[in-house]
This record gives sequence, C-alpha cells and structure tokens, in this order.
Amino acid sequence: MEQFILDTSLFVNPACRKQFGKTPETAVTGFIKKAKTKKSKAEFYMPPLVFKELSHFAEKGASKLSTIVRKRAPNLYGIYIPAPILYSFIEDVRHRINKGLRVAEEFAQDNQPDNKIKLNKLRAKYREAMRKGMVDSREDLEIILLAYELGAIIVTSDEGMIEMANKIGVQWIEAERFGALLNAL
Amino acid sequence: MEQFILDTSLFVNPACRKQFGKTPETAVTGFIKKAKTKKSKAEFYMPPLVFKELSHFAEKGASKLSTIVRKRAPNLYGIYIPAPILYSFIEDVRHRINKGLRVAEEFAQDNQPDNKIKLNKLRAKYREAMRKGMVDSREDLEIILLAYELGAIIVTSDEGMIEMANKIGVQWIEAERFGALLNAL
Repeated sequence: MEQFILDTSLFVNPACRKQFGKTPETAVTGFIKKAKTKKSKAEFYMPPLVFKELSHFAEKGASKLSTIVRKRAPNLYGIYIPAPILYSFIEDVRHRINKGLRVAEEFAQDNQPDNKIKLNKLRAKYREAMRKGMVDSREDLEIILLAYELGAIIVTSDEGMIEMANKIGVQWIEAERFGALLNAL
Repeated sequence: MEQFILDTSLFVNPACRKQFGKTPETAVTGFIKKAKTKKSKAEFYMPPLVFKELSHFAEKGASKLSTIVRKRAPNLYGIYIPAPILYSFIEDVRHRINKGLRVAEEFAQDNQPDNKIKLNKLRAKYREAMRKGMVDSREDLEIILLAYELGAIIVTSDEGMIEMANKIGVQWIEAERFGALLNAL
C-alpha cells in the first residue's frame, strides 16, 4: 500500500490540476473519481491545515475530498528532526533577509510618483527574494513532517518543500506527474 | 563542575562587558583573570564560529581567550531537535516577512528626496522587524545546540537565543549577571 501526502498545488496550480480538471473544484472531483479506482493500492492524506487552505480555492471540493483523503496532522511533539535542517534554514533566512533589504532600498531610492505600479513591483520582487523556494508556512512543514513520520510520499510542485524533503530523506513526486503515477499503480 | 557557553555579547555589549572591562579587549583580559580563579569550579566553551565573530571586536582577546575557553562546535549531525522548534521558527519568520514588507512599502511610498536619512531609517526599521528577538545566525544556533548537547548553561543577553533556549529546556544566565555568578561559585 503506497501512502501519499497531497499538497494544495495538486488542485490549485493550473499546470498540476489540468490532469484532473480545469478549475480547482473540477480537479478535486476528477481526482476523487480516479482515486476511488485505486483504493486497494493507495492511501491519501492531507493535514487538516492543508484541507483548510484548499477550502479557500475549492470549498465544495475540500469537503467532498474527506471521503477519500484522510485528515491527519503530523505527531508534531513526537517528531525529532536532525539539527542541520534548522541550521541550514536559519542560514537561508539570513541571506533572504539581506536580499529583502536590498529590494526595499531599491524602491525607497526610486522617487517616482507612480506608486501603484511601484508597490506591485516591490511586492513581486520582495516575494521572490523572501519566499520563493523556501518552506514558508506551517502547511508546507506539516506535509513534510507527516511524510517523514509515516514514510509516505509527498505530492507537490513546491521547490522549497522538495528541497527540505531531499535533506531529510523523504520521497516526493512532482504533482504534474501524479495522475500518470496513479494510472501506473 | 559547571559548564558555560559564552556568547560574544558578554564582551561586546557595553552593559554586559562593563563588569570585566571598558572595551572588548580589556573585558576579555578582565574575564580571563577572573575565570582562572574559578578553574576548579567552571568550564568555559565557545564554538569556533563564535571565536571568529569575537575576533572582529577583540582580535588579541579572542586569541588569548583560548587558554581558558575551550573551542568546541556542537556535534551538529548527531543532534536531533523537537519538530516544534522548527515549526514555531517558520511561523515567526512568516510574520516577520510580512512586517518587513510593510516597512518596505512605507518607504517606497515616501517620495521625499532625502535619501540618506531615509535609507538609514529604513534599515533600522527593517532590522527591528526582521531580526530583533530572533535566532538569526549560525553562531547563535551553535551556542544553543552546544548547550543542549552538553547540558551546559548559556551566557547571553540575546532575546532570540533566550526564547529558543526556553523552548528546548536549556539553562541560561543573563550576561550582565555572569561576573556576580562567577564570584558566587
């Protein structure tokens, strides 16, 4: 029996969800249909926080999904992780804080009055510097820790999650390839 | 035998070092003198990275210090930490990233041409939002992990280190009070 931990990107990211449906809601319905045919071969999990996150994009879907996807948080207080995980995370955050300041300085020095465009650009650049490729939410970390605890496989297209999964010896499959993998089970 | 892990703040922060000397260099000399009288009752440690950090403030001192303070890094690859430490750290970083963006937006919208003053203000506010009260360097984390590994006592005035020490059950003493504690040994 294979165990899979699903990230919301499977249903939210257009490139990922298209294997199951056009919108988040239809992608969830399409996934449920497919998943039911694999019930004897695969178990699916999502931490409750991730269910909640998904419900912002597909409210009906998130509630239907719990017939086939198990709600399970990691046993946070029972899990110990190797110290180098935190060590390299702090090092990464430190570099990002410096990059974020460079972005802030650039926009503080640009005294042009087109504030709306400027603010949007600032937000995009800051987000890129601070968050892209980093585990930046409890949701992401819960998926990694649940997979670590269960010895399960993460289904995601998130670079930051994949990087941490690789550091801690957790299996993952690109969300884009998950439909094909289910077919092959 | 008590074991103490020293943070650079003991010699660098004026409020902390004044119990041993007026400048970082004389504070180191003053500490060495005092520490030698307590050799049978206390062991002192600093991770090599922290020695290096101190040498930027007190080059001669850092080199003299190794006669009484042991150079010892934590056994990083042998230490496991409870997952909630990383969980709450990621949550804290997420809030700080948002606060940092608010600071950046504020300065991007302020179209006054006084750029030098503006940049200094931006840096101070950004630093306050992003780093104050957080473990934000490998040096800080090495001190915490070494104390965790040895069951030793951290000597520091850093809020972020104290907060993490409290989460992981590590003893600490305010650097300001360390001279008095040595006297009482």
